[in-house]
Amino acid sequence: MALNNPNPLGPWKITVYDQENFQGKRLEFTSACQNIMEGGVDNIRSLKVECGAWAGYEHSSFCGQQFVLERGEYPHWESWSGSNAYHIERMMSFRPICSAVSLCSNPLNHKESKMVLFEKENFMGRQWEINDDYPSLQAMGWGNNEIGSMQVQSGAWVCYQFPGYRGYQYILECDHHGGEYKHYREWGSHAQSFQVQSLRRIQQ
Amino acid sequence: MALNNPNPLGPWKITVYDQENFQGKRLEFTSACQNIMEGGVDNIRSLKVECGAWAGYEHSSFCGQQFVLERGEYPHWESWSGSNAYHIERMMSFRPICSAVSLCSNPLNHKESKMVLFEKENFMGRQWEINDDYPSLQAMGWGNNEIGSMQVQSGAWVCYQFPGYRGYQYILECDHHGGEYKHYREWGSHAQSFQVQSLRRIQQ
Repeated sequence: MALNNPNPLGPWKITVYDQENFQGKRLEFTSACQNIMEGGVDNIRSLKVECGAWAGYEHSSFCGQQFVLERGEYPHWESWSGSNAYHIERMMSFRPICSAVSLCSNPLNHKESKMVLFEKENFMGRQWEINDDYPSLQAMGWGNNEIGSMQVQSGAWVCYQFPGYRGYQYILECDHHGGEYKHYREWGSHAQSFQVQSLRRIQQ
Repeated sequence: MALNNPNPLGPWKITVYDQENFQGKRLEFTSACQNIMEGGVDNIRSLKVECGAWAGYEHSSFCGQQFVLERGEYPHWESWSGSNAYHIERMMSFRPICSAVSLCSNPLNHKESKMVLFEKENFMGRQWEINDDYPSLQAMGWGNNEIGSMQVQSGAWVCYQFPGYRGYQYILECDHHGGEYKHYREWGSHAQSFQVQSLRRIQQ
């Protein structure tokens, strides 16, 4: 089979709908949207990512729960929310994840993903440098179900509360906060604990 | 940090509780459980995987919705269910995934994971051999949001309805059905369509 990616490096493109199953009012975006209500719709209820990797947010101005959105079709809220402790079915803003590693095979565009996990907050305690996906950190030898702090050296990553890429999503990028996330309060306004049990690179 | 896995190859171990947050009656298992009611509890409401990778099922006798369970802590139903189209909060049976690839670095124990995706059912149409994780099949060049059939040549895999490892989970193993899954009806009794947008290896 020909595995030619028609849009290896963008431009980013996302199409959102104000009803489930790609119905209702339809809006196309190729860059960040800070408040979907400015497009004349009250909420996003389905979407298609046509190019690039995106971060979606529960509230306007990129606040609240975070959702990593990779290329494909999302017919309803549950299809992008994953499993979350609270089910407020809202997505009001979104933006491209510019530091996500390209899947393009052009070596000039290739960047490695690399980050360091720390046992304690403020980059203290034992540390572990990673550059791959981990569906279970504990299976790989990490001692418990928490990470104290993280330093993203390259690429973009998504961490999850539960094993197997489930629960709250925290998007971490080398070009935000200087790649430094020294306490769970910096992972996102919805983060309520240090609990992280799986994580993976974001590719596009 | 020392990344020594204390139980690189098992034995499998899972601890289940009949209340959320690891409360209530507690049962330990090192092999398959066909019906949790035989242990004197009406349902599983939290669990810890202490060793190995497991498949959990909505109904007794390994039927209904499937949930891949890797090492870590799952305090409530949403933590293992992922996002699903119907929320019946039940897990009644579970079993080890014996063909999951070992994370152990002993080369004698190392098996590659390999499977072939087919565009159409019955192993027809265009095909694509894979041996890695794919959070978005479309980003990697797969033409649409469906897979017609799959042949698992080695290891165990989990496929998902939506991108980013979300939605219904379908566990596919080289040592079940001879590794052949020629129609979505063979992916599991809960499968309702050919829709698969992400997939990954199961490691333990």
